Amino acid sequence: MTISATGPAVTVLGDQWRACIGTGRTREVLHADYRDSLALVQREIGFGAVRAHGILHDDMGLVQRYAHEGRTHTRYGFAYLDLVIDTWLEAGIRPFLELGFMPKDLASSDQTVFWWLGNITPPADEGEWVHLVRTVLTHLIDRYGLAEVRTWPIEVWNEPNLASFWAADEAAYHRLYEITALAAKEVDADLQVGGPAVSPGADDWLPRFADFLAARDVPCDFVSKHAYTTGPAEHVPFGTYQSLRPPQDLLDQFASPRAMLAGTSLAGLPIHITEFSSSYRPDNPIHDTAYQASYLAPVLVGGGEHVSSFSYWTLCDVFEEVGVPTAPLHGGFGLLGHRQLRKPAFHLYAFMARLGSDVLARGDDHLVTRRPDGGLCILGWQPQDGHTRQTAGHSVRLSLSDLPGRVRVLERHVDAERGNVRRAWMEMGSPLAPTPRQVEDLHALSEPTLWQWSEAPVGGRLNLDVRLGRNGIALVEISPAPEYAPSWLDDARLLGHPPESQTTQESKG
Amino acid sequence: MTISATGPAVTVLGDQWRACIGTGRTREVLHADYRDSLALVQREIGFGAVRAHGILHDDMGLVQRYAHEGRTHTRYGFAYLDLVIDTWLEAGIRPFLELGFMPKDLASSDQTVFWWLGNITPPADEGEWVHLVRTVLTHLIDRYGLAEVRTWPIEVWNEPNLASFWAADEAAYHRLYEITALAAKEVDADLQVGGPAVSPGADDWLPRFADFLAARDVPCDFVSKHAYTTGPAEHVPFGTYQSLRPPQDLLDQFASPRAMLAGTSLAGLPIHITEFSSSYRPDNPIHDTAYQASYLAPVLVGGGEHVSSFSYWTLCDVFEEVGVPTAPLHGGFGLLGHRQLRKPAFHLYAFMARLGSDVLARGDDHLVTRRPDGGLCILGWQPQDGHTRQTAGHSVRLSLSDLPGRVRVLERHVDAERGNVRRAWMEMGSPLAPTPRQVEDLHALSEPTLWQWSEAPVGGRLNLDVRLGRNGIALVEISPAPEYAPSWLDDARLLGHPPESQTTQESKG
Amino acid sequence: MTISATGPAVTVLGDQWRACIGTGRTREVLHADYRDSLALVQREIGFGAVRAHGILHDDMGLVQRYAHEGRTHTRYGFAYLDLVIDTWLEAGIRPFLELGFMPKDLASSDQTVFWWLGNITPPADEGEWVHLVRTVLTHLIDRYGLAEVRTWPIEVWNEPNLASFWAADEAAYHRLYEITALAAKEVDADLQVGGPAVSPGADDWLPRFADFLAARDVPCDFVSKHAYTTGPAEHVPFGTYQSLRPPQDLLDQFASPRAMLAGTSLAGLPIHITEFSSSYRPDNPIHDTAYQASYLAPVLVGGGEHVSSFSYWTLCDVFEEVGVPTAPLHGGFGLLGHRQLRKPAFHLYAFMARLGSDVLARGDDHLVTRRPDGGLCILGWQPQDGHTRQTAGHSVRLSLSDLPGRVRVLERHVDAERGNVRRAWMEMGSPLAPTPRQVEDLHALSEPTLWQWSEAPVGGRLNLDVRLGRNGIALVEISPAPEYAPSWLDDARLLGHPPESQTTQESKG
Amino acid sequence: MTISATGPAVTVLGDQWRACIGTGRTREVLHADYRDSLALVQREIGFGAVRAHGILHDDMGLVQRYAHEGRTHTRYGFAYLDLVIDTWLEAGIRPFLELGFMPKDLASSDQTVFWWLGNITPPADEGEWVHLVRTVLTHLIDRYGLAEVRTWPIEVWNEPNLASFWAADEAAYHRLYEITALAAKEVDADLQVGGPAVSPGADDWLPRFADFLAARDVPCDFVSKHAYTTGPAEHVPFGTYQSLRPPQDLLDQFASPRAMLAGTSLAGLPIHITEFSSSYRPDNPIHDTAYQASYLAPVLVGGGEHVSSFSYWTLCDVFEEVGVPTAPLHGGFGLLGHRQLRKPAFHLYAFMARLGSDVLARGDDHLVTRRPDGGLCILGWQPQDGHTRQTAGHSVRLSLSDLPGRVRVLERHVDAERGNVRRAWMEMGSPLAPTPRQVEDLHALSEPTLWQWSEAPVGGRLNLDVRLGRNGIALVEISPAPEYAPSWLDDARLLGHPPESQTTQESKG
Repeated sequence: MTISATGPAVTVLGDQWRACIGTGRTREVLHADYRDSLALVQREIGFGAVRAHGILHDDMGLVQRYAHEGRTHTRYGFAYLDLVIDTWLEAGIRPFLELGFMPKDLASSDQTVFWWLGNITPPADEGEWVHLVRTVLTHLIDRYGLAEVRTWPIEVWNEPNLASFWAADEAAYHRLYEITALAAKEVDADLQVGGPAVSPGADDWLPRFADFLAARDVPCDFVSKHAYTTGPAEHVPFGTYQSLRPPQDLLDQFASPRAMLAGTSLAGLPIHITEFSSSYRPDNPIHDTAYQASYLAPVLVGGGEHVSSFSYWTLCDVFEEVGVPTAPLHGGFGLLGHRQLRKPAFHLYAFMARLGSDVLARGDDHLVTRRPDGGLCILGWQPQDGHTRQTAGHSVRLSLSDLPGRVRVLERHVDAERGNVRRAWMEMGSPLAPTPRQVEDLHALSEPTLWQWSEAPVGGRLNLDVRLGRNGIALVEISPAPEYAPSWLDDARLLGHPPESQTTQESKG
Repeated sequence: MTISATGPAVTVLGDQWRACIGTGRTREVLHADYRDSLALVQREIGFGAVRAHGILHDDMGLVQRYAHEGRTHTRYGFAYLDLVIDTWLEAGIRPFLELGFMPKDLASSDQTVFWWLGNITPPADEGEWVHLVRTVLTHLIDRYGLAEVRTWPIEVWNEPNLASFWAADEAAYHRLYEITALAAKEVDADLQVGGPAVSPGADDWLPRFADFLAARDVPCDFVSKHAYTTGPAEHVPFGTYQSLRPPQDLLDQFASPRAMLAGTSLAGLPIHITEFSSSYRPDNPIHDTAYQASYLAPVLVGGGEHVSSFSYWTLCDVFEEVGVPTAPLHGGFGLLGHRQLRKPAFHLYAFMARLGSDVLARGDDHLVTRRPDGGLCILGWQPQDGHTRQTAGHSVRLSLSDLPGRVRVLERHVDAERGNVRRAWMEMGSPLAPTPRQVEDLHALSEPTLWQWSEAPVGGRLNLDVRLGRNGIALVEISPAPEYAPSWLDDARLLGHPPESQTTQESKG
Repeated sequence: MTISATGPAVTVLGDQWRACIGTGRTREVLHADYRDSLALVQREIGFGAVRAHGILHDDMGLVQRYAHEGRTHTRYGFAYLDLVIDTWLEAGIRPFLELGFMPKDLASSDQTVFWWLGNITPPADEGEWVHLVRTVLTHLIDRYGLAEVRTWPIEVWNEPNLASFWAADEAAYHRLYEITALAAKEVDADLQVGGPAVSPGADDWLPRFADFLAARDVPCDFVSKHAYTTGPAEHVPFGTYQSLRPPQDLLDQFASPRAMLAGTSLAGLPIHITEFSSSYRPDNPIHDTAYQASYLAPVLVGGGEHVSSFSYWTLCDVFEEVGVPTAPLHGGFGLLGHRQLRKPAFHLYAFMARLGSDVLARGDDHLVTRRPDGGLCILGWQPQDGHTRQTAGHSVRLSLSDLPGRVRVLERHVDAERGNVRRAWMEMGSPLAPTPRQVEDLHALSEPTLWQWSEAPVGGRLNLDVRLGRNGIALVEISPAPEYAPSWLDDARLLGHPPESQTTQESKG
Repeated sequence: MTISATGPAVTVLGDQWRACIGTGRTREVLHADYRDSLALVQREIGFGAVRAHGILHDDMGLVQRYAHEGRTHTRYGFAYLDLVIDTWLEAGIRPFLELGFMPKDLASSDQTVFWWLGNITPPADEGEWVHLVRTVLTHLIDRYGLAEVRTWPIEVWNEPNLASFWAADEAAYHRLYEITALAAKEVDADLQVGGPAVSPGADDWLPRFADFLAARDVPCDFVSKHAYTTGPAEHVPFGTYQSLRPPQDLLDQFASPRAMLAGTSLAGLPIHITEFSSSYRPDNPIHDTAYQASYLAPVLVGGGEHVSSFSYWTLCDVFEEVGVPTAPLHGGFGLLGHRQLRKPAFHLYAFMARLGSDVLARGDDHLVTRRPDGGLCILGWQPQDGHTRQTAGHSVRLSLSDLPGRVRVLERHVDAERGNVRRAWMEMGSPLAPTPRQVEDLHALSEPTLWQWSEAPVGGRLNLDVRLGRNGIALVEISPAPEYAPSWLDDARLLGHPPESQTTQESKG
């Protein structure tokens, strides 16, 4: 098939792929390393919103009991929450509020999750929870303005279908949702509330959630769930290995709510995948590999057809669910490691951010887009199925027509060898505590490989063969490059020039 | 007494007053707000070193046990420690290492201190502790270089004389000191080790420490202790009130080790006051007041006569010993509040940093210095005795001679009303969660009041009357200001000029 | 009259006062000091557009003749023009293009204006001029996009009514306008072209300009002129003194085009005052005074009723029409001196930028506005008439009602003594080459004086007496300040507190 | 020959190669683009000093005549000079003062050089010149301190042997030198004065300069000259082509003063090459090529043996001797083009800046150094003779011994194809006015190509074959890379891993 550079767009690439990004724990937003990472991510990618666990967790200092004149009172401390949200807004990203976990003074029991001990129990007293929700939302509106806060989705709890996250049953979650949603709507009827934020494999919760809401006439503005494609974890010290399902499985998980909720009162609501990745483990090295990038490329390209957002879990490796990381690369969820080390998945997102919105063609290994200035911008990837190991790279072959008389082609590649921070780190001997010089080298070595060449398409036609490395992704940009050099400039008069022209054959990478 | 602007210096103002500054917890150095505060403090003041609790605490992720092939191993995780030290060094400040608290996997029991649960027990196995000390110091030398690490004092534990900090007795501390010092010296004989870091009122520990070291031939490079001048705490919710001894009491505490150790093997060693302030409570509002600045002024001016460093406790209010602060001003130890709000004590230090090193005169309410460029730089303060409440300000009267023909005088004032962030916050109604506009206003209102006037000293003599506000401090700079205006410039021709000159009487503040 | 804080707005304060700002010479935009000044001005004020002389002047390297194979050719060099416009756009300010002066290779003669020798003669060959105009505009559209360039007004030449700026007659200007406007419209019909950019006192040009355009059917999108209120210059070395007409005269100059063009084909077009100030001389000290600020305050407040923009001449003292400045303050046009020294006129603009858009009241000495958050923001000034010399300050008295139970009032003052960089510099002895320390002090001393106090308006009513200093302006902000301090906090327990409360009487400045 | 990684250094690499850098015109230092370039150059290279033409030229506004009360006076305007020197010092670079050209009010005639019209005539009145020199130096000492200014070499005039730079004869130069040197020494005897700053081919001036100084007992602290290796210019529009002598010719020019001055009174003085490059033309494309880098590599490596400094002409293409540049790459002298585009010569300097100071070996195509941390850092280049055109790259072959058990090797390459901004620009069609996207791409494409691989040297020995591209230079860093990966980490369990290990053969770039 030939793709016309000037033909009509077949579809439009929206912003669903960057509508949201995840962050491990709200308090971690206070870290300088997180703020530096956020700045880089926003400059190169530009996410719309960010969702984090533990906005109500005790380490935020939100609920503080004290005794005075013989009675117990509560003071609400917003110092850290304000700092967190200011940090986000100053970076041009909005909160996607996940309400949880339970402040210990409100909790009905003492079960916790994670190294940082998030309390996963229902409130001992519903009234106190409702008061907390109202107080927090009211404060946010006071500080940030009603118009602003109305754009922040409010999600009730996290993965209540898992015993590790919710020490109660489905009915108890429904009840929590109900009182929370009503509390929010009482603050302002146009606040956006949703749930149930279930983990993969729990789609059966969705119709029951719909039924419950309908039966009780409880408001709901969006439906949320998570998506991962790994199986059970095989643990080693400081690491996990897992099997993987094909990327289409992620897209199927994205697609299922719409089908399952057809005909219910939730039909037509926005659907948010509030977490997704390959593995759900924060210590699976797959996250750090080029495989992750090529595996997820078709998901980023296609996910927007199914949902309003799908939120990569997570922005960076400032993340402590299983403790303080002991190595610069430790299989963490992040697009970035500590100190802003860019993983291949970061580059996938950065490549996406350079695409145009006019989609001219889409295939199993490519997406061809056109920018407003008429240039073409192509994402290519090696297709992955979740079990075949690649022994070589992959050629993306495209036939383009209606090009101008001379074009330049700029290729950026990331693969098992190139632009690959993990590979570079392993060449260093996998040091747990890299020296400053090693860190500096890792930054340089995680830059995508890039080169440029020019060509005069005959009859406006160019047969492109983008040679991806193993597990590779590539960004190819094709721009008009009319020749401006005046006749009197003669490079052959320069000593730097070879005796006869060798330009053409040398030019390609 | 007349002070000659060109006469010889009576003494030299050293850098002991800014040789070191304290920070609550090592991990808090990772916070963006801390990093911003550190940058401001270093730009305006320029401390030489920084000391923090909890460098070995579990939240640093340093000691990580794991099982492999049926046995338990330890991995040392330096990710956070390296980030902390990089942050300090990039800001131009060196670590003053306080070794503590006990990683829980090495601890002999589970007693803790602080909201953040520092383990205060001796090691269960001395060998493991020694191995940890050696591993950490070796790593630091590998990463930062031996020459650099030799300049970092290493202090063993914190306030072992208090049951809340050391769940063992004095002999146990001596033993801990011994094995730690020997471990450090084994890594490198020129590392600087010291102790015993006792709290106020425990100077009797010092001669016994000396005796112990002498008896066992244990190395020691410096002696450390703390100094505070408040009595018992009277608690209110989120606050503490305490009585105060006179500032001379702080200087006496600084001076005592030299006297007590005379004749011992520790005589002549550097003495470091590794913590000092008025109150030892992190929720005493005195820290936020102008009183604190005027109270401490003579201490900063005179402390260097007694010790090699005296370290203000602390740099900023990123500090969680009693939990997450709930208000922007909460009686925290910091020179700076959250978001870099500058307290009067910050200005005291910033004023000190502008002084010259030639001391021309020193009195109960002033220090007169000369800068290398010949300008005079005077610190003035209202004397405080720790119990009298001031009803008015105070005049610092100085007679200066040998001045040039025309001088300009620049005054900066901080007092109960001016340059006073706490006062400004109270005028706002003491909001717990100030809005962005309020925060911006607090920054502007915490700027010292400043004005300039000029004068032609008759016969080179100037009688200066610096009118301090209540609890005030002032910085007065006197510089030559020869008149360059050419004859043809005639401001009287400008409409902005009054009909007749009113310059002189208007010029003074 | 009582002004209700919650009443309806009587009118809206638009952005005409900051729609445009002037810059001396296009090439000067390349200076680092200019870029620093631009950044400060945009951060504190936020102008919409910027107009500069000499966009076509030879020092921009735009027109470069060369010989090749025996013939003469022209190369257009856009290196500097692109740098200039990139600098502006990156600072968030758009070009207001003034087409001029004549590149010497296109000029019909060699008369010039300014130290930098702008050629003021008509083109020798109209076709070459037309080609230049087309080439420049086409390039700008190629680089910046058509939608963007359509927002940039294009003004033909500068003050053609003055022999010093246009070495030809009115008919020749009409002809230049015609061929230029037609050239621009040929490039794109929606480009906005206008003129005649006449100096004060030449309003008679306007109806003749209208007649000419109508007669020849020449397009015109806006009308422009300049406004100054000084009389003839009395020169001294490096300085000028001039008499001054009242500020109303400026407003009258703004208003006249609408009246004079009523009934012509230009009626209803946007009117741009593309330069205004008190004095038209770049070496009149009046520009540096507080008088300038108080004199212009009513003009900034009222100008938007008459015109679409009125452009202060100029942004900063990077300006060389009479040569390189020899003193930090030299009567230059700028809001800022070199090194970003802020003059009183800068503060006037910065005060304006803080006002709300709801105007609640306007008088001879005040403008009362309300911000979106409900706070009141008041600009006050001492009225000036252009000849009376003030011997004292001025009280702005306002009666406000419907205020909340407790308010805080924040006052910022700039006057002959306070926030006055020129006064501070004179106290230093008017040094031509201030030392780095003096420059630093000038920055600090040019900060407006500010203080805050709080009050509980009885019955919601507050009688405000804003005491301006001589030639003063003030910004007064009144915000709700409910009292949050809990009962148990008792400042009387702090040593910093006086024996009995002295808060109230001390609180006001 | 085998080079031992742990053997003694054969010599030390000093800082002569970066002791100084040139800048076209003093006033150009005021440009924002210059300041940005200076910041980049100092961050990546770190020159010690900077020398610029025209410090006294009229565009600096230094000498300003005025009439007052019927007489003519001179005002000295230091506004721009102070800005220039502040810019330099803030960037960590010191002035190398070149005194010239003649302010027109002091000049004896009106001959000028350059587009910017530097007056090249002797002073009309020697007394006025002497007064100017004294005034400038006294001002600099007042502002920057005597100790600082004593470190700034003061060179009298520029290339007085050329009629285009000095409209007088050798005797007149000697006279100028004499009065200037005496004026400087009168200000302070320890100021460092020198000359005669002759262009290439005028070494005969040196002994005559020595004789003159000796005969008249005139002080001299250093000897200066320039070095270029191109022949006569063949002009094309906006360009020049020239033949080239071998790089050794540059080293010979560096070496000659020492030989020629042996036995004179100037023997043993520091010799400064205050300008050098291949071509002396600001429009010769050779400056922008990789050829320039490989051609100059042996000069940078060897120059320090002959002279105290050799100053590359120039830092960046903010340079207007022949007018405003019309293209982003125009054969300008700079290490950097406009907008900080890095040319191959920049990378040569940046590579040099990463070398260690211990020289282990030096050859025709390499310099092997050792850093303080023990790592090896090797500069390699393709040897050039000034007339042979390369048809292929070049292999640098080195045999290294005494290496640790496992090393990583990091290679950075710049050559005709890689890291080559000019090549990238030509692929774009050589646009005169590149778009913002093209500029961004040029930045990315001018990054040196880099890769890393690891190896376990057998018996501590490594035979290195560094394969340079055509006209290439390379930086090769060899660091210990012990293997830290624990046994349980098994990449073969990751899907990203190929079925069998292909690591070794893939690893080399």
